[in-house]
Amino acid sequence: MKRIAIVVASLIAITVNAQEKPHIMLVMHGGAGTITRGSMTAEMETQYRDTLAQALKTGQAVLMKGGSSIDAVEASIRILEDSPLFNAGKGAVFTHEGKNELDSAIMDGKTKKAGAVAGVTIIRNPITAARAVMEKSPPVMMTGRGAELFATKMGLEIVDPSYFWTERRWKGLQQELLKEQQRQANPHASIKSDDETRHGTVGAVALDAAGNLAAGTSTGGTTNKQYGRIGDSPIIGAGTYADNESVAVSCTGTGEFFIRWTVAHDIAALYLYKGMTVEQAGNEVIHKKLEPVGGDGGAIILDRKGNFAMPFNSEGMYRGWIGPDGVPHVEIYK
Amino acid sequence: MKRIAIVVASLIAITVNAQEKPHIMLVMHGGAGTITRGSMTAEMETQYRDTLAQALKTGQAVLMKGGSSIDAVEASIRILEDSPLFNAGKGAVFTHEGKNELDSAIMDGKTKKAGAVAGVTIIRNPITAARAVMEKSPPVMMTGRGAELFATKMGLEIVDPSYFWTERRWKGLQQELLKEQQRQANPHASIKSDDETRHGTVGAVALDAAGNLAAGTSTGGTTNKQYGRIGDSPIIGAGTYADNESVAVSCTGTGEFFIRWTVAHDIAALYLYKGMTVEQAGNEVIHKKLEPVGGDGGAIILDRKGNFAMPFNSEGMYRGWIGPDGVPHVEIYK
Repeated sequence: MKRIAIVVASLIAITVNAQEKPHIMLVMHGGAGTITRGSMTAEMETQYRDTLAQALKTGQAVLMKGGSSIDAVEASIRILEDSPLFNAGKGAVFTHEGKNELDSAIMDGKTKKAGAVAGVTIIRNPITAARAVMEKSPPVMMTGRGAELFATKMGLEIVDPSYFWTERRWKGLQQELLKEQQRQANPHASIKSDDETRHGTVGAVALDAAGNLAAGTSTGGTTNKQYGRIGDSPIIGAGTYADNESVAVSCTGTGEFFIRWTVAHDIAALYLYKGMTVEQAGNEVIHKKLEPVGGDGGAIILDRKGNFAMPFNSEGMYRGWIGPDGVPHVEIYK
Repeated sequence: MKRIAIVVASLIAITVNAQEKPHIMLVMHGGAGTITRGSMTAEMETQYRDTLAQALKTGQAVLMKGGSSIDAVEASIRILEDSPLFNAGKGAVFTHEGKNELDSAIMDGKTKKAGAVAGVTIIRNPITAARAVMEKSPPVMMTGRGAELFATKMGLEIVDPSYFWTERRWKGLQQELLKEQQRQANPHASIKSDDETRHGTVGAVALDAAGNLAAGTSTGGTTNKQYGRIGDSPIIGAGTYADNESVAVSCTGTGEFFIRWTVAHDIAALYLYKGMTVEQAGNEVIHKKLEPVGGDGGAIILDRKGNFAMPFNSEGMYRGWIGPDGVPHVEIYK
């Protein structure tokens, strides 16, 4: 009888512990846009799915070993940055001047520490540079050659700008430049840019075993971008935000709308101040606020209980999630 | 009897009209920091008070003529940018490399359109460049030489970088560089930077006769800043935010905290989602959230009813306001 009581007590303790212990969780996106089944070959789709799954498994392994959510965000985003498929790192699109200028941000939900780099051209993994800024410098945000000098001093991997040259993105720029000429020649004609090749972003939000949230985002910006444009990705509160009190968020889409609507922080504020769920807060901003004004894109949102949402108002969004069971779930279309 | 009735009816109409018609209002700040009566000469204080009053009257005149809140914000900030007293425009502090790199942002509460420039060195009035970005370019945020190229194309006033050289700020950099050397020689000694000369920002929030809000901020950053650091001023949601649905906000202080806490948008979110007043929302963020973590600075906040607050947790903040009566109110200390 005593033994049974002890066993029952132990079972109750385990159950309570299991309930109290946070789930680990990793949610990622690889950009939103005009991504339809018709526009994708089977081979391309497989490549995207495989690379996203690899990134998810890499981040999940970090979390399962007791690594921090920051570690998981960085490790998983590096996989997408090193792939030529996504508009971040290796696969970055070209600016008007034919350069690759990369932006990235990372934020730790436990400390609210954050780091961001913008307009960098020689740092192989901008997410790692953002993390170095977060951990090793008073500034939160660095740009251009200053950020590159800092990354070099920190011993990060520096590459020749030609590392970021890929034929697909170069052709994307040539197409955009041609369309620009056509627009100038025919101001009244409706010549649309190709959404999918034009922008894109990668991002991750993670919850670690200690119950801490983190978020990270990395991008090559928009094809044919000019004038040292900075989008929402490296802007804390716009494209990237994490706070243990509310949620971790990473966004993708037409950055200007995400800046003006302070999307990542607005989602967190609706969760914290209005008591919305991650789904409700995401839908409120992505569908009710951004969709009517033409702000296309999406977000991934994760709270400390492991609840997550992946709302988007575009045709598709590369996205996926992975939990303690290690099975990656990848989705592309609506 | 008929005449009296008409007079009474007219008086009622005037009263109703006065209640319905939005008050015009302009609130400004000129930076927060260790500003105490002991550290200020009577002559300096008079100069600061006079220049702030002039800026307030300039912006108020715009509003009284039926000008927009954006017009008033730009016009009033240009006065402070053209003065050597404030850390913005002419009076900008020096970077580690001995340069003046300026940041600015502006936002229209009616349309939520926004514009920002960061790290610019040859634009006389960064607030006017931010407005040009808002009105004439798809990007919301531009940096460095790209932003300068855009401003040049837009026909804005371009100056030689030496325009921003002032003896006071140059001495400020030399003092900071000396302290940096002393810190390196004595890592355990507490060698504090001079807060007042080290940073500072100017900002304005306005409500026009049509009931539209606007906010703008302009800064020279921090003395001895490195690595292309960007502070909160040009970041929509951090140092600058305006939305007719909630409030207009401009911040000043240690920018990194204002970025990490998304201060301007958080104040707006507390007003909109929690139903706080401008005072309550300002105190919640500036005193309850930032003060405990050492995030020193302040904010000016204005809603569509003309209610405003000017909370700060530093020793002082140059600040002032002006309403329809045209009397400028300027304050500096606690």
